[in-house]
Amino acid sequence: MTIFKKLTILGGATVFAVAAMPGMAQNLNLHTFAGRNSAVIGPVPHLLAERVETFTGGEVKIKVFDPGDLVPAIQYYDAVSQGSVDAAFGAAGFEVSKNSAYDFVSAIPFGPQAPEYYAWIFNGGGLELAQEFYARDNIYWYPCGNVVAETGGWFKQPLNGVDELAGLSMRFAGLGSKVFTKLGVSTQLMGGGEIYQAIELGTIEAAELSFPANDRSAGLPEVAKHNYFPGWHQQQAINEILVNMTAWNGLSDGAKEAIHVSCKAAILETMAEGEATQFAALEQHVADGVTLHTYPQDWLDTFHATWLEVVEEEKAANPDWARMWDSFSAFRARYKLWADRAYLPRN
Amino acid sequence: MTIFKKLTILGGATVFAVAAMPGMAQNLNLHTFAGRNSAVIGPVPHLLAERVETFTGGEVKIKVFDPGDLVPAIQYYDAVSQGSVDAAFGAAGFEVSKNSAYDFVSAIPFGPQAPEYYAWIFNGGGLELAQEFYARDNIYWYPCGNVVAETGGWFKQPLNGVDELAGLSMRFAGLGSKVFTKLGVSTQLMGGGEIYQAIELGTIEAAELSFPANDRSAGLPEVAKHNYFPGWHQQQAINEILVNMTAWNGLSDGAKEAIHVSCKAAILETMAEGEATQFAALEQHVADGVTLHTYPQDWLDTFHATWLEVVEEEKAANPDWARMWDSFSAFRARYKLWADRAYLPRN
Repeated sequence: MTIFKKLTILGGATVFAVAAMPGMAQNLNLHTFAGRNSAVIGPVPHLLAERVETFTGGEVKIKVFDPGDLVPAIQYYDAVSQGSVDAAFGAAGFEVSKNSAYDFVSAIPFGPQAPEYYAWIFNGGGLELAQEFYARDNIYWYPCGNVVAETGGWFKQPLNGVDELAGLSMRFAGLGSKVFTKLGVSTQLMGGGEIYQAIELGTIEAAELSFPANDRSAGLPEVAKHNYFPGWHQQQAINEILVNMTAWNGLSDGAKEAIHVSCKAAILETMAEGEATQFAALEQHVADGVTLHTYPQDWLDTFHATWLEVVEEEKAANPDWARMWDSFSAFRARYKLWADRAYLPRN
Repeated sequence: MTIFKKLTILGGATVFAVAAMPGMAQNLNLHTFAGRNSAVIGPVPHLLAERVETFTGGEVKIKVFDPGDLVPAIQYYDAVSQGSVDAAFGAAGFEVSKNSAYDFVSAIPFGPQAPEYYAWIFNGGGLELAQEFYARDNIYWYPCGNVVAETGGWFKQPLNGVDELAGLSMRFAGLGSKVFTKLGVSTQLMGGGEIYQAIELGTIEAAELSFPANDRSAGLPEVAKHNYFPGWHQQQAINEILVNMTAWNGLSDGAKEAIHVSCKAAILETMAEGEATQFAALEQHVADGVTLHTYPQDWLDTFHATWLEVVEEEKAANPDWARMWDSFSAFRARYKLWADRAYLPRN
């Protein structure tokens, strides 16, 4: 999108989008927050780039830049907004300082499993709300990958009661951290690569990170032996592509369709691979002496009641968050009539 | 694929695949088993055709033919195998007379929900087994759409016990019918359009058909007022594309990728739309005086035990079926370690 970038720089803030000329090559620089070797997620932007180039007959060439090459891993929002980076493969959870409503297209405590989540996103209003909010910052938003359920956290010692959470120091990212903070946990945010050492040194006593295969990559089974389930704070999460709006508007309809369809395929692929690759990690956890615990229902009830307090606070703090919550919870309430009947109990 | 068809006709059975020449237009005739207006499923082949033409820059043009235009709705297998029709959008359940193992890539009683199903298909061996079996008949197989859970059947009178099934006359398709037959039900197969009249005339007393939106289209809430859940016999089903192998081998790598990626996107789209459109149908059912029932757990246990008898018979009858079962059930057994812990109870 060199042409548009130059126009922006020369002409100031306002640039009228020009329809792409047939045969005019367009080069998009795409930042990714996840290294290529990151389990399940890492290959997504590289595959997207290959497919979009193939499907546009070379009209659109996407060059993928690793974390740090253009901007730091999770600090891509302003760069895409301003157009100094054309696009980014990311997760909305990294962008909630810009608008807390982005929580809803990232991961939601006590949120839905994947089929219901995408039903709301694509057919229940979620996509339109997200695109409205991102457009204010000159960004086109689209979901582009699924993240399977996280685990409910790693602890050095087993917990004998929900009250034992109070006073613990724990790495925790996202909305779930607000729930655990209310329960007396001292929550801290740190990168996945720092957790191992922080637990070993005693800086923290517990951590939630990701799904089991990623938790293994981070070495967590070596430093904590009690892994709790379910990951109530992140039953499923979404990856995304952000495209500078001027760059987006300059793409042909065929190129836009190539991005949409490739991203939808990526969601299915990461959903399938994510589900298929966790049990082997759990089997290895157990072989390494990790005990797999399930949170008792009354603890989950406490977490849920506390989450509803967080909901009220977030709604009051941000009208966009309230609009997302209203859309999401109205959809879920009607969906329940179906979900309560359609599916066999897991057994 | 006119060129390959002519070669086949002139030269006999064996034709060596020729790589597509760049810029050589290829026309594929695609039969669809489902009319364009069929809820959720109907638009899939039309969208596939549009996308593949766009993504190949017009190199591949797919013309979609409605049921009956080339061959009857569900009788497309031999035509694709022989190459008189290049491709078909279908469901493997229509093809089990060719190989009962196709059951596994269609719908499986007590089978998985969508994320687990696609985990096995794409990352657990299901795709490779299906492609091996179809290739024997000169067919390339690929999944191309999801069908959300069916309901567990429509009855004119509520059932007071599982023993009341014995003696009932019921429309029932697929493997589930073998379970109900063992329980004394007189199962019959008929098209969706015939069920309404058959119940009204008293030819049958009960029927399973599809998911709620399709059941409504077939008028079932007007002739039966008791709708049972869950659809234990079809928790999720898969649509597919079949392509004559000679035609498939003549496609460029880019065209093959366009079909794969468009089909994966179609799976996600139909999964999302399928989940999003059932609760409104159920709300209307209730407004029409339909009672929604849930099969008691002990009835489901009876259905499941009877299903395991069917499994033994099918395994003994067909080694391909046994290979599919072994792959599928070994995957599910390991997946359970994850699934039992990862997800919140539905509540």
